[in-house]
Formats: sequence, C-alpha cells, structure tokens
Amino acid sequence: MTETTPTTDPIRLLTSLRAIREYDGRPIPDPVLADILRVARWSGSARNDQPWDFIVVRDRETIARLAGVDGSAGFAAGAPLVIVIALAGGLKLRESYDEGRVSERMMLAAHAHGIGANTGWFSPTGGAAVKEMLAIPEGKWVRSMVAFGYPATTGRPGKPDVRKPLAEIAHEGRFGEPFGTE
Amino acid sequence: MTETTPTTDPIRLLTSLRAIREYDGRPIPDPVLADILRVARWSGSARNDQPWDFIVVRDRETIARLAGVDGSAGFAAGAPLVIVIALAGGLKLRESYDEGRVSERMMLAAHAHGIGANTGWFSPTGGAAVKEMLAIPEGKWVRSMVAFGYPATTGRPGKPDVRKPLAEIAHEGRFGEPFGTE
Repeated sequence: MTETTPTTDPIRLLTSLRAIREYDGRPIPDPVLADILRVARWSGSARNDQPWDFIVVRDRETIARLAGVDGSAGFAAGAPLVIVIALAGGLKLRESYDEGRVSERMMLAAHAHGIGANTGWFSPTGGAAVKEMLAIPEGKWVRSMVAFGYPATTGRPGKPDVRKPLAEIAHEGRFGEPFGTE
Repeated sequence: MTETTPTTDPIRLLTSLRAIREYDGRPIPDPVLADILRVARWSGSARNDQPWDFIVVRDRETIARLAGVDGSAGFAAGAPLVIVIALAGGLKLRESYDEGRVSERMMLAAHAHGIGANTGWFSPTGGAAVKEMLAIPEGKWVRSMVAFGYPATTGRPGKPDVRKPLAEIAHEGRFGEPFGTE
C-alpha cells in the first residue's frame, strides 16, 4: 500500500515515501507549495553552487502539454502542480547528483503534507520542447520535473512495494562481507 | 549556525540539514546506523532499479585511508562512520541522480538523530583505489561516499549558511515570471 499519511516520526517520513503517479483533482494549497520551495531552496549542492531554477507550473493546460512531450512524464497529465527543474552547467554528473538531491527533498516536503509526487523524465528532444514552452534560456539544461498531487483513491491498486533485502545491498568493511547490525 | 538538534517538525528537518565536515570522536550508535541503512534501502530510484550497494566502514584506519585517496574526502579522516556507495550501471546521469537521492536520504536520517554528514567525492583514480581497497567488483562504479559523525563543538565556526533568495530561483508559469506565493 502507498503511505501518504503525514507523520511526525522523521525516520518514518523518510522510509515511507513512495512514487505516486495518480492524483485526484484537488489543487495544492499555497502554504504547501511555499514549504516545497523553501525546502528546495535550502537543499545542499556541490560547492553550494545551487545550480537550479524551479519553474512552478499550475496551469492545467500547460501541465498537460508538459506531460505530452517526449519522455516519461505522461503520468502527470492530471497533476495540479508540476515543478520543472532547469539546471546550470550542462549534462554533467555532479549536476545530476544535485538534481536528484533537490528532487528528493521536494518529494519529502510534499509527503510531509500527505501529498504524493513522482519524477517525470524528458528525452533530449522533449527537454528542448520544454525549454521553448517555458521560455527557459539557452544556457540551462532541462531533463526532469516533479509532479505533485493528492493521491487518487480510486485508481488501480499500486504495485506492491519491493526493495532488495538489506543483506543483499549492505556490506560491512568491504564488499561481500555481510553487514551485521540487523 | 549549524542546526543539528533532532526535530519532529518534518519541514524543519528538511530545511535545517547542513553539510557537517568536522566531527567529535564518538561512534555512531548501532540503532542509528540501522536507521540510516533502512532509509537508504527504501529510497526511490528510476524504474525501482535500486542500483546501489553500501559499504559500511567503521574501522578508523580504513576511514583515514579512504579520506586520503584522490578526491575531496579529506575532511572525513576523523569520522567514525563512512558509507561508500557502489553503483551499478556505469557513469550515467540517471544513476548519478539516484546516487544523489539516496545520499540525501541517508544524510537526513542521520540529521534526524542529531548527527552530521557530508558527501566526499573521489576522482576517477581515487574511485579505482577505493574499489581495490574495499574489494568492490569490476562492474560497479564508485564516485562518492557519505561521512557521518557527531558535530565537533570546538571546531572553527562554519561559514554562514547562504542560499540564493527564492525570488531568484523560483519562476511562476514560465522562466522569468516572478513567483508570488511568498
């Protein structure tokens, strides 16, 4: 089951975030959006470069167009809020790492309010289309967005949440030595 | 000022994480390490690939050697805990995005317990040295680690926390339109 109940247990907040891809029609309240952006602003980045711009899209028609460009953002067509991330610095690994960090923080901020979110990806041609659509300048790089919305309660049941067992991914001291804390 | 007090306010947890690079000597309690790894395990990844292995290093001599390889991990020489991330899939943007996501979650999990953390980077030659040091197999890619520790209270005062104003990085509807929620 997806878990979207707000929680004050920080570890539970961090372990219970799931990708939510189907939303009901309710808009995101302004104070929640303010929290999401405040959290984004305070995210860490390599050398504190803060290589990001956030384009907040709430116009439903524009969101439907964003969902339709080449990539994997089609799920977001009915979302009430999309934040497109424009990165300085081009297609580099470090910026991609920072893009992941700030996306994760925004999704956690939404989750703290019981709101679901998911990353949508653009192909290179899709990203170019988004740049034109949102008037994003030449020097910026657009590869992803985050869609937000209250989870649909009438959608098809989600896939079961699966993760590899800790014994398979955690190693003690060197690769291949079983990790023994739990 | 750095902020490392545990908090039950999730938004405050998310806005108050700072990079902590100086640690006192105390070890990280096992239950905290278990929480960090549990949070890492439940992190999201593209297509739920979970492209990561975590090598938990608590041996002080090994940590000092990790801090000494080519890169920017020198700050970690006195840390009581380092988690090296080994990624499947090679030097790709998507894996780097996921590496950022899982690193951010681990740092937030530590922060929830009042423990500081910071990312250390390896150069390509540094990463190769780490792979050999920790017996990480050929197919994996190592570019970063996260160091953890209780913040030193006697270190030099940190740099003031600065972030760009929201008005500079948030745009409404299209790039260049001022965002108006706050």
